Amino acid sequence: MPWPQNITLNEGSFTLSSSFKVTISGIVNPRIFVGTTNFLRRLDGRTGMFFSQGYIKDINEDPSAQLQINSLKKGVVGINQDESYKIEITSNKITIDATTDIGVLHALETLLQLLQNNGDSFYFPNVIISDFPAFTWRGLMIDVARHFQPVDVIKRNIDAMAAVKLNVFHWHLVDDQGWRIELKNKKKLTELASDGNYYTQEEIKNIVEYADQRGILIVPEIDVPGHATAILTAYPEIGSKYLKEPNEQKQSQYKIERNSGIFRPTLDPSNPETYKFLSEVFDEVCPLFPAKYFHIGGDENEGKDWDANPVIQKFKQKNNLKTNHELQSYFTLKLVPMLKKHNKEIMGWEEIMNDKMPKGTIIHSWKGSNEGSPAGESLVNAAKEGFKTILSNGFYIDLMQSVNDHYLSPIIPKETVLSKEEKDRILGGEVTMWSELVTSKNIDSRIWPRTAAIAEVFWSNEKDINLKSMKKRLQFVSNRLEELGINHIKNKKMILRNISNYQDVSSLVDLSNICEPLKIYTRNKGGTEYQTYSPFTLFADACTSDASDAIDFNEVVDNYLQDKSPKNLNRVTEYFKKWIFMHSDLIKLSENAPLIKPILPLSQSLSELSTELLAVLELNKSADKSLFNKLLINCNSRNHADVELVIGDSFKKIIDNIN
Amino acid sequence: MPWPQNITLNEGSFTLSSSFKVTISGIVNPRIFVGTTNFLRRLDGRTGMFFSQGYIKDINEDPSAQLQINSLKKGVVGINQDESYKIEITSNKITIDATTDIGVLHALETLLQLLQNNGDSFYFPNVIISDFPAFTWRGLMIDVARHFQPVDVIKRNIDAMAAVKLNVFHWHLVDDQGWRIELKNKKKLTELASDGNYYTQEEIKNIVEYADQRGILIVPEIDVPGHATAILTAYPEIGSKYLKEPNEQKQSQYKIERNSGIFRPTLDPSNPETYKFLSEVFDEVCPLFPAKYFHIGGDENEGKDWDANPVIQKFKQKNNLKTNHELQSYFTLKLVPMLKKHNKEIMGWEEIMNDKMPKGTIIHSWKGSNEGSPAGESLVNAAKEGFKTILSNGFYIDLMQSVNDHYLSPIIPKETVLSKEEKDRILGGEVTMWSELVTSKNIDSRIWPRTAAIAEVFWSNEKDINLKSMKKRLQFVSNRLEELGINHIKNKKMILRNISNYQDVSSLVDLSNICEPLKIYTRNKGGTEYQTYSPFTLFADACTSDASDAIDFNEVVDNYLQDKSPKNLNRVTEYFKKWIFMHSDLIKLSENAPLIKPILPLSQSLSELSTELLAVLELNKSADKSLFNKLLINCNSRNHADVELVIGDSFKKIIDNIN
Repeated sequence: MPWPQNITLNEGSFTLSSSFKVTISGIVNPRIFVGTTNFLRRLDGRTGMFFSQGYIKDINEDPSAQLQINSLKKGVVGINQDESYKIEITSNKITIDATTDIGVLHALETLLQLLQNNGDSFYFPNVIISDFPAFTWRGLMIDVARHFQPVDVIKRNIDAMAAVKLNVFHWHLVDDQGWRIELKNKKKLTELASDGNYYTQEEIKNIVEYADQRGILIVPEIDVPGHATAILTAYPEIGSKYLKEPNEQKQSQYKIERNSGIFRPTLDPSNPETYKFLSEVFDEVCPLFPAKYFHIGGDENEGKDWDANPVIQKFKQKNNLKTNHELQSYFTLKLVPMLKKHNKEIMGWEEIMNDKMPKGTIIHSWKGSNEGSPAGESLVNAAKEGFKTILSNGFYIDLMQSVNDHYLSPIIPKETVLSKEEKDRILGGEVTMWSELVTSKNIDSRIWPRTAAIAEVFWSNEKDINLKSMKKRLQFVSNRLEELGINHIKNKKMILRNISNYQDVSSLVDLSNICEPLKIYTRNKGGTEYQTYSPFTLFADACTSDASDAIDFNEVVDNYLQDKSPKNLNRVTEYFKKWIFMHSDLIKLSENAPLIKPILPLSQSLSELSTELLAVLELNKSADKSLFNKLLINCNSRNHADVELVIGDSFKKIIDNIN
Repeated sequence: MPWPQNITLNEGSFTLSSSFKVTISGIVNPRIFVGTTNFLRRLDGRTGMFFSQGYIKDINEDPSAQLQINSLKKGVVGINQDESYKIEITSNKITIDATTDIGVLHALETLLQLLQNNGDSFYFPNVIISDFPAFTWRGLMIDVARHFQPVDVIKRNIDAMAAVKLNVFHWHLVDDQGWRIELKNKKKLTELASDGNYYTQEEIKNIVEYADQRGILIVPEIDVPGHATAILTAYPEIGSKYLKEPNEQKQSQYKIERNSGIFRPTLDPSNPETYKFLSEVFDEVCPLFPAKYFHIGGDENEGKDWDANPVIQKFKQKNNLKTNHELQSYFTLKLVPMLKKHNKEIMGWEEIMNDKMPKGTIIHSWKGSNEGSPAGESLVNAAKEGFKTILSNGFYIDLMQSVNDHYLSPIIPKETVLSKEEKDRILGGEVTMWSELVTSKNIDSRIWPRTAAIAEVFWSNEKDINLKSMKKRLQFVSNRLEELGINHIKNKKMILRNISNYQDVSSLVDLSNICEPLKIYTRNKGGTEYQTYSPFTLFADACTSDASDAIDFNEVVDNYLQDKSPKNLNRVTEYFKKWIFMHSDLIKLSENAPLIKPILPLSQSLSELSTELLAVLELNKSADKSLFNKLLINCNSRNHADVELVIGDSFKKIIDNIN
């Protein structure tokens, strides 16, 4: 995963032995040595073979090696590069051919996914693969403003991105809740608006290099003119807030935001100091990032402080700017030359689009049905109007939706008619991980494994998008992500151990496997129940989307309804019995664990419904449909512990089928 | 843990509510704000209460707060400081009084350990504690040369150190296998001798600050003149190796070491360039570390290259140096003024001791029975000869011994007669984590929880050293270490999942709970079976000392032998049945997991012995002692998978008792 463009499976296989070695030929960047050494260590770790080859430091180190890697020229990390590769595996030789070392890195990831085993050995199937991406921009955005994410979180997620052939890390560095990047000439930003949580410039350079070694481009985002509370906490003088009384101080108008939502603080587009400030910021930030693109945000500026400020209103009139959108466009256009100076193209959320923008601009399409727009509307509009564009709508993984929803969400809306030129302007897609409700302890479980499936949407041929096949492969990929250092699997029980007060967590695991966190902005309603410093160690934070037992139970119920054999009935009633036991066990555990209390109403509702259904299905008690429906309503409640039981539909099918 | 010096438990308790707040008064360093904010977040995380108080940034923020912290003066992180504190908890108020903010940090850790709960709430028992350390130097050394440990490993271990009131982090930065510290004036060291794995100076400053905020002093070590392969890989010209042929190149004589052991490469004490090099190194390293002490290693120099070099022999003669120890003393004394220049006292392993050393020197005592010396011999000698000294013998946690051994190992050898002055020169103890056989994935499970018990040896009153009480509390502390971010619990199953090829790991867990890694230098014999780049993802790497089921089984057996009731018999035979099932399950799993194969001989031996004993004890089959003993020998084998079953003694007791 992502599924390659072309595969030919042949007879036989290449069996791995401890004498396995790699050699590299051609014209390459040093990144290929890092990549190949890492490849060997990962193969070492999985197989326990501990190959003798240590650090690969040069080309042509061992011409007799079984894995021969050839690369024609040095690769550049960026957009519209040749990322293709070929792998040929025969029983005694593996060959990788790629135009550049970036293609080689992709090939090594494919190879690691191809490894099979029986009881005695590890082997690669004999196969010929030729592969290249469907879209050139395959991104993941991480918001480090709302919850800061330390360097090791960023690095391990870059590793995981590379494993599924994503190639752009979009770093959302600034928002109302924090400024996260050290500026040597504007120290106030981190002193007053970061709570000490920010990246030093050296850390940023180090991460940029780390990403480059893995073939990943980093695009920074400084979100303006809205989402500016953190900036204005440090530099209130460039804010739009109008002070009615002469003795009011702008300083007191802004303080770093602790809640979630859309807030008023906005840069003042009528103040020349605003542009001086931004120009100086770009002068310091741009050189840290080699990428040709710079994301300036531009989203969700509701203009309330603009409307309330007579100076800004006067400025609008004077400049013949009729709407706030025109005012924002005026603002955005002022930034273009500041970035051009550093050879950067401007990029922003779809709100920045206006007809005066240079055609190199990238429009980041994000709105969809939650915002009252058709999905991808701005993407298609941007492409038609001559802009480059990428899509994030459909890939908002913070909404805690099923992987199915994201996987079946295409980049180009179905039945869109576009010319070849227009289509070429659609560069790809980007997964967005907004961080209102995550910490470094559970962010991995929000990003992975779902992002691996989305990576397939970005890379693979549309004809190979196959839900059933993906679901099967996703489990495998998920395990491999743990091997790489992603902690989505192990941290679940860690959170549950804390909740259980270090008692046996089996029953908590059972419940978590049928519960999912509240979805699509229904958790932390109003944005004030939790603060940015809330640690999120609750039951909901251990739960994930695509709860595993819920999926299995649904299948078990479908099988039973199709064929009411004793065996199929038994599989259904086993779940009921498990959940009845689970509830009584949770009650017992809760006597020494206050954090279990809030989830008991859910396990109780489930236990009651299970008991009733068990009596009907196993003991032939007569069914009381109204009781069933009442109990089902309790099970479907979203009022407990920020989670919902996701087995309601399966239960409804059983109940509807009775009598 | 560590047990406080004085505790008075009173009636009643302070119940935590979500309105809980903290206020601070007195004269303090900023570290108290970081410490108190972290305290609130940890309490938040454990209780799920998510207090409204965010970042504490000043004194006297809320005089009505329930937790009142008072500190008299600013604390300095270092040796021989006042670290005492008092806590008084009443039903509606908690008061912490300490001389300095360092004492306050200790008090907050104690408070976190005092938190209790019932089914409904979290509370602190009403108590009065006054506390101070038995020894002023309470250290943990981590070797980052043999296996590099990234910044996040160091930081989380500093957190854990603070949690158990350790106060010195000894950073072993250089050894034969790598140079781990960026020098801007000697870039070759990291370019040629680090494999890219080193700390930048900014990272070091950041870690020093991080440690300082937690009350922890960092003492760096640059190990010379032996253990110098990495240095000489970059600067061969200062090596002692004698070149017989005029066309031989020193360059080719040294290359970075991949194995473990004691190696010949040694700095040349007769070459003035050696001292110039070291002086320049100290000039760059010293300013990074505020500590008054600098560790120059000095251990395990066997002098082979000195003996073989006629130039060095001539130098010895000329300077009237009779032995290699005298030559090394000559070398060491040359370093004293280089460090004095930076206001640093010299510190080194016990081999540096000689009668010309200044009395401020700290002698680091490490040899013991493994090296043919009585434990603590050099500690006592150093104290008697007027040097300051600390002890590491007995605290070598890389040897994988039981926590009991370390806990019952006192700092001052029993029955030693010392004057008060001599006793005062014994500053304390230091745990050593040598890293031949660890990676960042399992190092936590080697350090913790055993180091928490050793911390009690360093801090608490000798009369409170109580094995049974410690073992009970250690489980609790171990869980709290996970809360802090230590991954000793969760990474065990992660390694086992890899070994099982992501099948059910229950049987592997069962086996790992009665297996321990080979101890005291018996794993990786000769130092060449594994290399520094071996990833250590094997079964032995998931096992730890103090295997939990082995301890429980021993108790079960003792109970049975004391009272052969059916209930006690049943507890014994349940283990036998579990292990018989475990073996058959492991066979099944191994059909899809080659890494399980190497452990099957052990589970088979155990299964066979269990089967025989079950037949005798449950079915009254007549006992065949010679068969028992044969099977027991198989169980006691150390020839499989780098581990040993640690239930042999318990089995022997049963067998001896039959008939």
